[in-house]
Amino acid sequence: MASATNTAPSGGRKLKLGIVGIGVGASEILPAMEATANIQMVAGADVNPRVRDTFRKRYNAQTYDSVEKLCDDREVEAVWISTPNKFHAPHTIIAANRGKHVVVEKPMAISLSEAEGMIEAADKNKIKLICGHTQSFGPHIRTMRRIIRSGELGRLCAVNVFAYTDWMLRPRTAEELDVSQGGGVPYRQGPHQIDTLRLLGGGMVRSVRGTTGQWFRGRPIPGYYAAFMEFADGTPATLVHNGYGYFLASELVPWGTNRSRYTYEERAAIRKQLLDGTRNENEDKDAMRIGGAQEGQLFRNRGERRPWVPNDLGILIASCERGDIRQSQHGLYVHGDDGVKDVPIVEGSTSRRAELEELYNAVVLDRPIRHTGPWGMATLEVCLAIMQSAKKRKEIMLSHQVPAPEED
Amino acid sequence: MASATNTAPSGGRKLKLGIVGIGVGASEILPAMEATANIQMVAGADVNPRVRDTFRKRYNAQTYDSVEKLCDDREVEAVWISTPNKFHAPHTIIAANRGKHVVVEKPMAISLSEAEGMIEAADKNKIKLICGHTQSFGPHIRTMRRIIRSGELGRLCAVNVFAYTDWMLRPRTAEELDVSQGGGVPYRQGPHQIDTLRLLGGGMVRSVRGTTGQWFRGRPIPGYYAAFMEFADGTPATLVHNGYGYFLASELVPWGTNRSRYTYEERAAIRKQLLDGTRNENEDKDAMRIGGAQEGQLFRNRGERRPWVPNDLGILIASCERGDIRQSQHGLYVHGDDGVKDVPIVEGSTSRRAELEELYNAVVLDRPIRHTGPWGMATLEVCLAIMQSAKKRKEIMLSHQVPAPEED
Repeated sequence: MASATNTAPSGGRKLKLGIVGIGVGASEILPAMEATANIQMVAGADVNPRVRDTFRKRYNAQTYDSVEKLCDDREVEAVWISTPNKFHAPHTIIAANRGKHVVVEKPMAISLSEAEGMIEAADKNKIKLICGHTQSFGPHIRTMRRIIRSGELGRLCAVNVFAYTDWMLRPRTAEELDVSQGGGVPYRQGPHQIDTLRLLGGGMVRSVRGTTGQWFRGRPIPGYYAAFMEFADGTPATLVHNGYGYFLASELVPWGTNRSRYTYEERAAIRKQLLDGTRNENEDKDAMRIGGAQEGQLFRNRGERRPWVPNDLGILIASCERGDIRQSQHGLYVHGDDGVKDVPIVEGSTSRRAELEELYNAVVLDRPIRHTGPWGMATLEVCLAIMQSAKKRKEIMLSHQVPAPEED
Repeated sequence: MASATNTAPSGGRKLKLGIVGIGVGASEILPAMEATANIQMVAGADVNPRVRDTFRKRYNAQTYDSVEKLCDDREVEAVWISTPNKFHAPHTIIAANRGKHVVVEKPMAISLSEAEGMIEAADKNKIKLICGHTQSFGPHIRTMRRIIRSGELGRLCAVNVFAYTDWMLRPRTAEELDVSQGGGVPYRQGPHQIDTLRLLGGGMVRSVRGTTGQWFRGRPIPGYYAAFMEFADGTPATLVHNGYGYFLASELVPWGTNRSRYTYEERAAIRKQLLDGTRNENEDKDAMRIGGAQEGQLFRNRGERRPWVPNDLGILIASCERGDIRQSQHGLYVHGDDGVKDVPIVEGSTSRRAELEELYNAVVLDRPIRHTGPWGMATLEVCLAIMQSAKKRKEIMLSHQVPAPEED
């Protein structure tokens, strides 16, 4: 079972971290930061004075109103970038040029040229760049990969993943409603499935044929994608995410009922309010930020033993020569010739804790990074290929793929 | 709810039917034929003397050892062709040339040129040709299509369907284990999903990108396919069928447990026997034929009220602008803005009964056929395109598509 044990060496020195963009993304990662003993939060930057104030008081940390100022703080060793998507590239480059290590949330950038610029800046400044915040960091997926690589079920032959979520109904800022700024399900949710499929399938995607869909007038961004992709070795994968929030994939697991963020009735009400313009999204969004009324309920005190439900990643089925693997409540169902085993997750960390460990291990212990800049860029390439395939109505061949790390 | 009512006019004259190929496929359709009052089974042909004998006694009908002889029987008006796949085209042409109407089971043929020959023979001889036996005939799917076409949920935006079954473990004859004779999951199971998707999506598929997979040494035929297809109007669909029988999609509905043909242990035992050559498939197969020990349990006295489980079609989710539709135990879940409704199936007939009605209505009442030769050929084209896409590793553009019938 997942446990709260921190697998980073105890007694190691603390890594001093600054966070840029104290929005909803930050609300999600802050509890993991607090729980990681060898991470010390020393600074935060945001344009919003209220969140700066709450952050300063809660963490007894410096706060700044710009990324530049935070990166000029000599105390800060590494920067966690959870600003809006269009700032991921410029903020990463600002931090790198000031010698800070960087974890940048998904999607790492909006275009491949931005991603290239980030990788160059990291290389030039010899800083560690981690492309973070996808579910491929999670213990379920890492354990799944270990089983696949162990050969116990033979080679991996196919993977399919499908998510049906309420993502489109969650509160959005104006920039999140602009696809040219990285808004919508393909940019925002694609990386979860793509990163995971690439990790399981070895990383090297050959081609993508897919499409995006946008069909709710209340949201001017795509809320859907579906794609077929093929790895260089011929292994196929399909991926689907429908974020419109009618049917939810969590209904397909017995423990998934009533585990969604909104009830069915709430989702219908939100849709109506979005259509008639009466929904106060700014207020909703603010409630989810640090110190907001929803922060605690949504992101804090969640415990480690909550059962998995097929939310943003969805239901993933990895098919091997002699069996299938999929997620169970607290582990993995391994369907093999000897029966179905519910294999517990033995790794020490949740997905978010694992990102912090990867950062700590890279910066303090000089261990190799799994989610490198080139890895993140390859995931972004698949994500962009789905959108390009939708526009051109044809298969897109890929050219920026890199293999999955040998060891995990 | 499904009911046993026959929607064909009562009191109409009886249609005299002959069946060619009294194998397992016939075992599946015979109960529906018996239950259809205005169908009279007058003849059967098979190379196997035991099944001929049982058939003759059960139905008090003529039997023949060849399709030619059955088609020379002037009593026979229409022929049901359930011979092995490689005979579908020649047997259809033999029947057509003798002036018999034809229902041919899926796949209608092994190649497009065969399908063209069948359509030509039907046209030349002015006989009715129905491409039968896919789940698109089923009342769930017809009801789903009606809801989509009613516009109640807005336009259809995307469809996804995935099946995980034990198909590869069911008994097979030698010819069923030869892909050049139409063996394997793509040929045999593809038509269920493809016909259904085409019916829901309007019929006109623009392109297909997919692959097939073959990874169990005990079966020299593909047991897997996955594909992305796009309709001419841009609507996307994905389809997956994994027939290797580890994880089953029926596990994803609460009423699906223990509803599979074999238990998990039986499936493991069959796999082992197939690998070490100790499984007596001929015996298993014979038990499923007419008069065999398994016939009753598998195909007869099944009643009309058995709950649906995601077997060969799989779990299908049709997404519209304002809701999703999927199958429920006895109807359809319609997830709309007013909540989730479990809509009962109001059509009168099960899938197999509907095929017989389509035949009766076409031959006796001169009503239009929905599953025409060109319709079946278009479904076969998609099926072949998945296999071609697998070989060429590229997207296949289609050129033989026809629209779905206006009324259903």
